[in-house]
Amino acid sequence: MAKTIITVSRQFGSGGRSIAKALAEKLGYDYYDKEIIENVALETGFSQEFVASKGEEAPGKTVFSYGFENQGVPGIMNGMTTHDYLWTVQRKIICNIADSGKPCVIVGRSADYILRERDGVLNVFIYADMDFRADRIVRLYGESEKKPEKRLSDKDKKRAANHKHFTDLQWGYAPNYDLCLNSGKVGIDKCVEIIYDVVKNS
Amino acid sequence: MAKTIITVSRQFGSGGRSIAKALAEKLGYDYYDKEIIENVALETGFSQEFVASKGEEAPGKTVFSYGFENQGVPGIMNGMTTHDYLWTVQRKIICNIADSGKPCVIVGRSADYILRERDGVLNVFIYADMDFRADRIVRLYGESEKKPEKRLSDKDKKRAANHKHFTDLQWGYAPNYDLCLNSGKVGIDKCVEIIYDVVKNS
Repeated sequence: MAKTIITVSRQFGSGGRSIAKALAEKLGYDYYDKEIIENVALETGFSQEFVASKGEEAPGKTVFSYGFENQGVPGIMNGMTTHDYLWTVQRKIICNIADSGKPCVIVGRSADYILRERDGVLNVFIYADMDFRADRIVRLYGESEKKPEKRLSDKDKKRAANHKHFTDLQWGYAPNYDLCLNSGKVGIDKCVEIIYDVVKNS
Repeated sequence: MAKTIITVSRQFGSGGRSIAKALAEKLGYDYYDKEIIENVALETGFSQEFVASKGEEAPGKTVFSYGFENQGVPGIMNGMTTHDYLWTVQRKIICNIADSGKPCVIVGRSADYILRERDGVLNVFIYADMDFRADRIVRLYGESEKKPEKRLSDKDKKRAANHKHFTDLQWGYAPNYDLCLNSGKVGIDKCVEIIYDVVKNS
């Protein structure tokens, strides 16, 4: 059947988000990335910055994980950690997007796992070598006090730990996706073309 | 630069070998699969069946691994286990193929790792869901006393253990390859097309 939901998981700096956006435009599908963060922020009362930084990171181990930031929505978290609460809200929003029946491209947030039982889903993983990504994040996001390689490996570790924690699956292990592309080797534009071709012809 | 060496790692039953063969024909590249086994057998004195079964399997842990089968080439193994010896011969043959400078497609045998320092190499991993592979191996290789799912998971485990042992890399982890395709979802013919397109246009 036609692929109407494309999930794009990506290493930080690989261009996965640019690929997902260009793909959505080319397909005429809705595009979800920051929109999910905005909706989670709206529903939880957390700031968008907080949701953006915590929603794909490894669960913390400190006492502060247990909802102390959550002054705005007392009682709602039912003893869950902030990470668990964010996950449940994110999950519900992603399911609602899928339930709407409108074709879409969804970036990150373990949408591949959340929608695993549904038909018509194509799961893509985008990654690239360290050099390619380091060059790209400095150009796009500017310098920081951390070396780009350190920023990248920190992000990779956090996303992998988050994914493992909530799905028990290994982030980046090929058999967990339908298509995995090294954007540095294949090229950003060619990645968009390949995924488009698979959506239209498989 | 143009990709002149394509390595195809594959899950058993995924059609990776068929894809590699069709790709080599389409590209007009030499194709190496059984040819490697034949050459290793010729060089080591082991039977082709022995090389085929041991060359991608996990190293054994019994005393029989220590060259007792190797009656035909006394002294050559220098105390190496049979698996280590097979690896060194396979490695040399794969390097010779690359050194010849003739464009080629090489199936399995950790050629992706062996040729990792060379330019113009494209590393592909082909895999598929259990149902797709189980159906395929029963059609292609016939029934056996083992259930197809058991045969598949045994092979997967052995190839992964062999790769880990000799390369210290995880078999099937996307960032270790340039392109990873689920042949069951993407389609065998489409996989050939995609890889061909990347070879020609990236």
